[in-house]
Amino acid sequence: MHLCNSPLLTDLYQLTMLQGYFDQGMTDQAVFEFFVRKLPPKRNFLIAAGLEQALEFLEGFAFTTDELDWLADCGHHFSEDFLDFLGDLRFTGDVHAMPEGTIFFPDEPILRITAPIPEAQIVESRIINLLQFQTLIASKAIRSVLAAPNKFLVDFGLRRSHGAEAGLLAARACYMVGFSGTATVLADKVFGIPTYGTMAHSFVMAHEDEAIAFQHFAKSQPDNVTLLIDTYDESAAIDKIIRLAPSLKRSGIYINAVRIDSGDLGKTAIMVREMLDKGGLGDTQIFASGDLDETALERLLRERAPIDGFGVGTRMSTSEDAPSLNCAYKLQEYAGRARRKRSAGKQTWPGRKQVYRLYNGAGTVDHDVLALEDERQDGEALIQCVMQGGQRVSSSATLTEIRERVMTSVCRLPSQFRQIDESVAFKVQISQRLQELTHALDQELH
Amino acid sequence: MHLCNSPLLTDLYQLTMLQGYFDQGMTDQAVFEFFVRKLPPKRNFLIAAGLEQALEFLEGFAFTTDELDWLADCGHHFSEDFLDFLGDLRFTGDVHAMPEGTIFFPDEPILRITAPIPEAQIVESRIINLLQFQTLIASKAIRSVLAAPNKFLVDFGLRRSHGAEAGLLAARACYMVGFSGTATVLADKVFGIPTYGTMAHSFVMAHEDEAIAFQHFAKSQPDNVTLLIDTYDESAAIDKIIRLAPSLKRSGIYINAVRIDSGDLGKTAIMVREMLDKGGLGDTQIFASGDLDETALERLLRERAPIDGFGVGTRMSTSEDAPSLNCAYKLQEYAGRARRKRSAGKQTWPGRKQVYRLYNGAGTVDHDVLALEDERQDGEALIQCVMQGGQRVSSSATLTEIRERVMTSVCRLPSQFRQIDESVAFKVQISQRLQELTHALDQELH
Repeated sequence: MHLCNSPLLTDLYQLTMLQGYFDQGMTDQAVFEFFVRKLPPKRNFLIAAGLEQALEFLEGFAFTTDELDWLADCGHHFSEDFLDFLGDLRFTGDVHAMPEGTIFFPDEPILRITAPIPEAQIVESRIINLLQFQTLIASKAIRSVLAAPNKFLVDFGLRRSHGAEAGLLAARACYMVGFSGTATVLADKVFGIPTYGTMAHSFVMAHEDEAIAFQHFAKSQPDNVTLLIDTYDESAAIDKIIRLAPSLKRSGIYINAVRIDSGDLGKTAIMVREMLDKGGLGDTQIFASGDLDETALERLLRERAPIDGFGVGTRMSTSEDAPSLNCAYKLQEYAGRARRKRSAGKQTWPGRKQVYRLYNGAGTVDHDVLALEDERQDGEALIQCVMQGGQRVSSSATLTEIRERVMTSVCRLPSQFRQIDESVAFKVQISQRLQELTHALDQELH
Repeated sequence: MHLCNSPLLTDLYQLTMLQGYFDQGMTDQAVFEFFVRKLPPKRNFLIAAGLEQALEFLEGFAFTTDELDWLADCGHHFSEDFLDFLGDLRFTGDVHAMPEGTIFFPDEPILRITAPIPEAQIVESRIINLLQFQTLIASKAIRSVLAAPNKFLVDFGLRRSHGAEAGLLAARACYMVGFSGTATVLADKVFGIPTYGTMAHSFVMAHEDEAIAFQHFAKSQPDNVTLLIDTYDESAAIDKIIRLAPSLKRSGIYINAVRIDSGDLGKTAIMVREMLDKGGLGDTQIFASGDLDETALERLLRERAPIDGFGVGTRMSTSEDAPSLNCAYKLQEYAGRARRKRSAGKQTWPGRKQVYRLYNGAGTVDHDVLALEDERQDGEALIQCVMQGGQRVSSSATLTEIRERVMTSVCRLPSQFRQIDESVAFKVQISQRLQELTHALDQELH
């Protein structure tokens, strides 16, 4: 794995609080839950993602000698015996979570950590960092899949992703929700995600003649010839391709596709389709890219643009219209007692919780119930134990399994939730006992 | 360094194009330039950032045996002798760039790579990935500095940054433009950026009594006591702090600051300031956080909210209102001949370019001239040679030097460019010879 899991990738206050817990001998079990407070505008649901990386982080959690030496000299107040304690610190707790690919809604925890408070606290910053990003991207990318079902969708987001890890994990998040693959090569090596590539304008521009560029590319990539046609003039490029095709065919090379990357993609595609068909290249597909997102895809499909596949980049891999989730990782119980934060606008539901999903007769999701873990409720319990005493209880789901879970879950949503331009609110009921516990905590004086 | 610089962190088409260049023996010098096409809404200028990481990437560029073995079996068409060629591939070219911290405008290249085309091509995806992100964040973060000059600003963005690298590099980008520091510990270890931390709600909630939580924290962090007051009720928390202060003082511990993280920050700060002053804690500062950005900072300062410092997080570290830049890395010359892409809406200025900045008599920036590298122009030449034959020509600027460059440059901008809510267009003139070259290329047939 190429992820940065240094325990120093954390907020300073985690370490200063840990020194405080250490000084007071506070090591009781803490229960933290990660949840999203509010849906971003234009999202009807979210898709849980990032659990695999979160578990890897927890499994590998340890300070190196170099990191401890650095902490000793970094100018903040950490005692020597506290640094010894950090040196021995590993994650030994339990993790309960919704499997990756589960649809969820505000206030529903998708991950719960139960561990001695120093362990549960120190992992906060990175756990949020890992869960929020892939959940953000999966929940954005599914919208492209819904807008262009049955189309070939490829993640083109690496270059404008926020750094290396974002590029790599965005490839994973969008493959998880149904993209066909990614252009990011490392995502194949690390996650086994299919990769697709075409050619760039620079390849054409490095040749004196566009037709020769096409010919060279086809000979070098005989199994997958996708030619970029908008470097200078699309119809001139298509003319060249039509003239080139017969000689390539004699060498057993077929032109799989052409790519359009600028201008009015729909109009250009219609013109290109016509020319290709007339030119005997009826099997050559059209691939489009450039500033695409679910709205653009839906419009192109509505206009019946004859486009077979799309490269979806920046707007998906940065979740351009909503580049963050209002999410939190909050203490819900300590030393056996439920806790509740009451800050204005940031109140939490206390205690260890479970989410139950209820379906109607036709198998469509009806509503969810947010309840305490130990109360019996009807419906499908979405949160499962995935780690016990710092060890996984089962092997991770494959990306293929997660893709299937996403598809099944999305199909069971009422159809209006699958619209990309309609806002519908989902009903999450709060169980009687959870309401009572909340009320009881509010009555206590602090 | 903790960055992911695998050469496989690239788009597949870079590798397939390289196979094409290899098959044709194309190894002539290529000139690529990185530039931004258009300012995002609400940005009057951009700040160049990320060069240091780009140069590190170029210096270390090499495929490992493991990566080459993987490529041989990955299912794409790469010939054996091409993989041998990749195994020997290093970056041996020249780099010209604007120093980090330079203010720049659309169409102005901030980096130029001159190298045999395979080298200049293969680095594209990561070069864009590195330059666009830090430039994006520096150009967003400067707006907070402009909105709240002389305030103590701390980057709180890690948890909702897009992955680890984004969190780490955002800390660098915002420190570069004048933030006081970051909460991200690793940014201190890697970049020497000052770190600041307070306490989280969980620390308070893990105690039965808020006052005891405050006392414990103060004793563990006697040099930097910042207490979070909004877990339950701010005025009750301040009462507790005022009652606690005398006994702490007897142990030589002062309460440096209190932090507010929710609700109406301005109103709460006024109430808190009054209580602290009356309670004998006139020296205790107020620190605020929670959904802050430059607009919120400006409003709080306009309302004269008595806040001394701010934690600025998600909205800055994701550049929430504009999470990407419309930027490109384009071939401008190959084998000694200038090249020009003409795709609709994506036309480029061809050739190797220099940017000249002209100042008026008072030393204020008047306009820029985009010219060919080899033409003489008045003004300050902004692009310098930073790497020759794959080796740096000088040691990198320190972050302190870059901070000074940013401050000086920003001060020399006409004042309306420093307004955060006013849009002003900057004049970039195109030199006569550059216009002529462009026209000449357009006349040629392709």
